Amino acid sequence: MNDVMFKTPVQEIRLSDTADRMFIKRDDLMGFSFGGNKVRIAWEFFQDMKEKGCDCLVAYGSSRSNMCRALSNLCSRYGIPCYVLTPREDLVEEGTFNSWMVKWFGAHIRFCHKSNVAEGVDKLMAELKSKGYRPYYIFGDRYGKGNEKAAARAYCQAYRELLEYEEDHELHFDRIFLASGTGMTQGGLMAGQRQYGGHARITGISVARPSCRGKSEVARFAEVDPEDVDFEDGYVCGGYGLYDGDIESVIRMMMERFGIPLDPTYTGKAFSGMLKYLKARPHEPENILFIHTGGTPLYFDYLNAVWDRKQAAKEITNNRCTGQ
Amino acid sequence: MNDVMFKTPVQEIRLSDTADRMFIKRDDLMGFSFGGNKVRIAWEFFQDMKEKGCDCLVAYGSSRSNMCRALSNLCSRYGIPCYVLTPREDLVEEGTFNSWMVKWFGAHIRFCHKSNVAEGVDKLMAELKSKGYRPYYIFGDRYGKGNEKAAARAYCQAYRELLEYEEDHELHFDRIFLASGTGMTQGGLMAGQRQYGGHARITGISVARPSCRGKSEVARFAEVDPEDVDFEDGYVCGGYGLYDGDIESVIRMMMERFGIPLDPTYTGKAFSGMLKYLKARPHEPENILFIHTGGTPLYFDYLNAVWDRKQAAKEITNNRCTGQ
Repeated sequence: MNDVMFKTPVQEIRLSDTADRMFIKRDDLMGFSFGGNKVRIAWEFFQDMKEKGCDCLVAYGSSRSNMCRALSNLCSRYGIPCYVLTPREDLVEEGTFNSWMVKWFGAHIRFCHKSNVAEGVDKLMAELKSKGYRPYYIFGDRYGKGNEKAAARAYCQAYRELLEYEEDHELHFDRIFLASGTGMTQGGLMAGQRQYGGHARITGISVARPSCRGKSEVARFAEVDPEDVDFEDGYVCGGYGLYDGDIESVIRMMMERFGIPLDPTYTGKAFSGMLKYLKARPHEPENILFIHTGGTPLYFDYLNAVWDRKQAAKEITNNRCTGQ
Repeated sequence: MNDVMFKTPVQEIRLSDTADRMFIKRDDLMGFSFGGNKVRIAWEFFQDMKEKGCDCLVAYGSSRSNMCRALSNLCSRYGIPCYVLTPREDLVEEGTFNSWMVKWFGAHIRFCHKSNVAEGVDKLMAELKSKGYRPYYIFGDRYGKGNEKAAARAYCQAYRELLEYEEDHELHFDRIFLASGTGMTQGGLMAGQRQYGGHARITGISVARPSCRGKSEVARFAEVDPEDVDFEDGYVCGGYGLYDGDIESVIRMMMERFGIPLDPTYTGKAFSGMLKYLKARPHEPENILFIHTGGTPLYFDYLNAVWDRKQAAKEITNNRCTGQ
């Protein structure tokens, strides 16, 4: 993998209803597997796996997971067996582009219950060892701890790219916003800021978790006190994967006005949340950076869903009684 | 629109069964509307429209058209009314991501018959004039002639990017391959070569047209003799939009091994054709450049189709008689 894959552009966009300058780091434009933060992070896990002398990768995630897509694509590229442990509860949402590609890349899907992931990990690891593999579980131990450093490295490096951009363009970002889910991306950025300097306030817009959990997860990757983590849970819109008309309007506006795809689960929810967050806090004009953490397949899932909905609405209309 | 949108990376990939060095110009990674050659070309039409003092854009194309998507997205971005004249015969294939987005961007769809496009153009232009618009038809006159220079400018400029890459990396491309349909992209590249120099052989792999027609169309944009156009029609696979197992294998291989999406209508057909073309002509190792002309929405259309096919196959299996 060469640097073409990772160095992504920063783009300024002009939003009409704000005096802030708005920039977007286009990590969705990475050249491998539709890019996104999970390609950067998957790459670091992959290097860690090789350094530890392992020869088989075990991931955990739902069928909507960008991480599982990125990891299984890296595995198909380098001929490494890939196993994905999936919560059985997520089976209902199997029909997504990510889940479809994960299978296409030859990943083996195994199921477990959300309430007992540790046991599922143990069982799968033991099975793979008995087959002669040296398996690598991306999150570390059975409880998903231990690989924080590998995960954080990805956005620690990306943070350096941002500093370079600031230097090249002689400007400073006052705030950095991003969709915050597992905490790996925000944690990495905060680790990068500690290591390389800078003063931008890094705010994660939660896509699902409440603040207490979110802060502690980000802190784990950033190696900071949870109280130092800026994690906003006011825009989760009911939970993971759920969205409303405001989020849909933002998705539509960003595509119509800038040709930039956002999805309702991560980037669209976060971008919409960021706009509300800024509006609710009157401030002097600032330089704002939003990190587009990718997930192009989710944009097309969304179009499929809207399409189905329209089709369904049309069928309902067609079937409507016209009498009376 | 800033230069972030247009400057795209060149990536080297290693294919196992060839001694050639293989490079890909990733025009699919442009930051606007999923990029691709049609974003470059649409941008040039858009500039031409403004230079001519027009205030309303008329496009022509099928629902699968990347051009119509790119143009209608530019129009939604800049608040320009957009009309798309669509051959009525293509209505059957309306359910594509491009057709869906064209509507989303607020474009007005009008229909005509393929056998009588000129009349359809006249009628629509007259209607728009009567409404007080100064409409701009992207292809020029009612017969689709006159705007060759605007179209060619896009890849004339892209050709310069290739020369810069060669200079920066101290290498020369011996051959340039691309999917050739309307002839605008290949024509532009050839015009660029005439203007800026270089010796790479530019070969268009036809996605539909026979050589005689293809050569003359490319020649129109390149302003050269049709005999000087290298246009291969040996890999059209039955016609526009049709594909076979070889093309599907290449699409799958490119995604699995390099995380690069190709589609069956344009880039996948052309890449597959290029590999066959090179294999059929024993040669000393060369530096080969393939221009990825984009069409990411078509990749997801393809996944939808495969998915439907799998679903259909499953239903057939489920419904199979088990008796006898």
